Amino acid sequence: MLTGDRPTGRLHLGHYVGSIANRVRLHQRYESFFIIADLHMLTTRNTREDIERVAVNAREMVTDVLASGVDPARAIFYLQSAIPEVGDLYTLFQNLVTVPRLERVPSLKDMARDAGKEEMPYGLLGYPVLQAADILCVKGQVVPVGRDNAAHVEVTREIARRFNHLYGEVFPVPEMIASETPTLIGTDGRAKMSKSLGNAISLSDDPATVRRKVMGMYTDPNRVRADVPGTVEGNPVFAYHDIFNPDRGQVDDLKERYRAGRVGDVEVKEKLAVALNRFLDPIRERRARFEADPGFVDELIVEGTERTRREVRQTLVEARRAMGLTSAYTQVRRRAERRRRAATTPA
Amino acid sequence: MLTGDRPTGRLHLGHYVGSIANRVRLHQRYESFFIIADLHMLTTRNTREDIERVAVNAREMVTDVLASGVDPARAIFYLQSAIPEVGDLYTLFQNLVTVPRLERVPSLKDMARDAGKEEMPYGLLGYPVLQAADILCVKGQVVPVGRDNAAHVEVTREIARRFNHLYGEVFPVPEMIASETPTLIGTDGRAKMSKSLGNAISLSDDPATVRRKVMGMYTDPNRVRADVPGTVEGNPVFAYHDIFNPDRGQVDDLKERYRAGRVGDVEVKEKLAVALNRFLDPIRERRARFEADPGFVDELIVEGTERTRREVRQTLVEARRAMGLTSAYTQVRRRAERRRRAATTPA
Repeated sequence: MLTGDRPTGRLHLGHYVGSIANRVRLHQRYESFFIIADLHMLTTRNTREDIERVAVNAREMVTDVLASGVDPARAIFYLQSAIPEVGDLYTLFQNLVTVPRLERVPSLKDMARDAGKEEMPYGLLGYPVLQAADILCVKGQVVPVGRDNAAHVEVTREIARRFNHLYGEVFPVPEMIASETPTLIGTDGRAKMSKSLGNAISLSDDPATVRRKVMGMYTDPNRVRADVPGTVEGNPVFAYHDIFNPDRGQVDDLKERYRAGRVGDVEVKEKLAVALNRFLDPIRERRARFEADPGFVDELIVEGTERTRREVRQTLVEARRAMGLTSAYTQVRRRAERRRRAATTPA
Repeated sequence: MLTGDRPTGRLHLGHYVGSIANRVRLHQRYESFFIIADLHMLTTRNTREDIERVAVNAREMVTDVLASGVDPARAIFYLQSAIPEVGDLYTLFQNLVTVPRLERVPSLKDMARDAGKEEMPYGLLGYPVLQAADILCVKGQVVPVGRDNAAHVEVTREIARRFNHLYGEVFPVPEMIASETPTLIGTDGRAKMSKSLGNAISLSDDPATVRRKVMGMYTDPNRVRADVPGTVEGNPVFAYHDIFNPDRGQVDDLKERYRAGRVGDVEVKEKLAVALNRFLDPIRERRARFEADPGFVDELIVEGTERTRREVRQTLVEARRAMGLTSAYTQVRRRAERRRRAATTPA
């Protein structure tokens, strides 16, 4: 399995619900590569300042993934840019897909717009091709996908098939594991939790911060007093209760009283803060253990990167051999070698 | 200086006039890299069969370049695909140029059409970006350009400037040496000499073949007999006389008599065949010397490739350091190393 993210630093509840929970489940079943996709980050953010944050962001992100329950003994974390051979495979793959095909991938235009790019960077149009190189350079067989990502991984599948058709079977055609990846709304009621929108609760927030953020959450704006009947649907406080509060009886009771105008926002939020902190407590404990061992996460990344690099190199040997590129240079070298030998052999 | 071609095999008079003559002159002035651009070939021709011909085509092409007068002691020939690090630089450059910018490069659409591609391959749109990687990976300072190529090298200049602006001065902004590169018309009178059109005279054609091709050349179609006045302008026989026959007196005399209807096509062609064979004789002699030493050209390519690869690796160290990518992984490794040392140090 291959999965991963651009190194954006601390993860929040939206990441957990959208992908991390899924990975925690899946990594028990598959040998799992977790890519820290800094080359992908460069497609939209490539200043020195962006790149200077990669090391710290990577460490924070991996720590949060481990704290969420991914077993460090079962996951191979690696830093994409530390494996330059990926660029070689990426270059070879670029001739197996067309510009119009990539222009039909819906999310790329959104990514360009979100990054404030007036014109599509060439590298961003190639984002799904670079992903194909990531997935296939370790011969990834399964890729968990959400809504956007499925269109990307479809490009990987086409490239794998095209390569195998042209040059012989080298790559698996990876299966997608479609997972319900609900999008978590923000604490402000906006469509998506996002650090940059300032509406996120981080997995690393302390109990007091979580409580403060919950008490400030957006609820039903029409409910000016506790005795006014309120709307539960689309109300972020109840959306969070549904996901993070395991006490279904309590949640049902709160919803019923909310609809009837028999509970104050404060009580609903207090109970949510308690539920969220209970949910986050084991994550905090695990994080504390990892943070008590400075360099542990870094060592994990270095070991994973070295191991992945060995696999990538092996894959490239196979890919170049299948294409005939190895043979091209070998033919030249053999003739050169024969001449050299002839020159040094006494008559 | 960086210059070169896709490995298409034997060169013809059109190549000589269009670029080789120019390189023969320029390589005396600059340290010169001659790229055998097989990765560029893959953007339009990437079957196993295409790739299987690379080694032989490369050898033939380099032999023809040397036979034309390039000094093997002053030229560094290298096989592009044997330097996978180029793909790394190419990947990093892709974020420094946009899709609309590349779509404004005029020749790419023609190349796609000529290759019978209904849709633009992604790699073909990136052709000028890969060229930028080729030129800048050896810190090329001058690039001889013809009509099409100038628009490509302009992309290289933009990428070099953009990189230097974002990350600090690493790359020279290469100068273009614009050269008159007349397009030689085919023996059939069509606009361009081309092996695939079957209207080419190869530098390696023997004297009888040259004579036969010349005697079959297209001339003025209105001239049904030798005493009919003919047109010199646009007449390929006279176009070739102008370029390859150093006896200006003879050429002027032939033109005058041709216009007046006082010379037969046969005489004009016989004299052209003699002039062309005289032009080709020193090229044939040099080729014979190189071919008498099997493996010489191969050894030249291997030495050039090894040397170029060393330069490319050094350039990549500088580029990655300037971007901050080296530092990102170094930070991770240092923390990992400290932990390892602490673990093995007795308390």
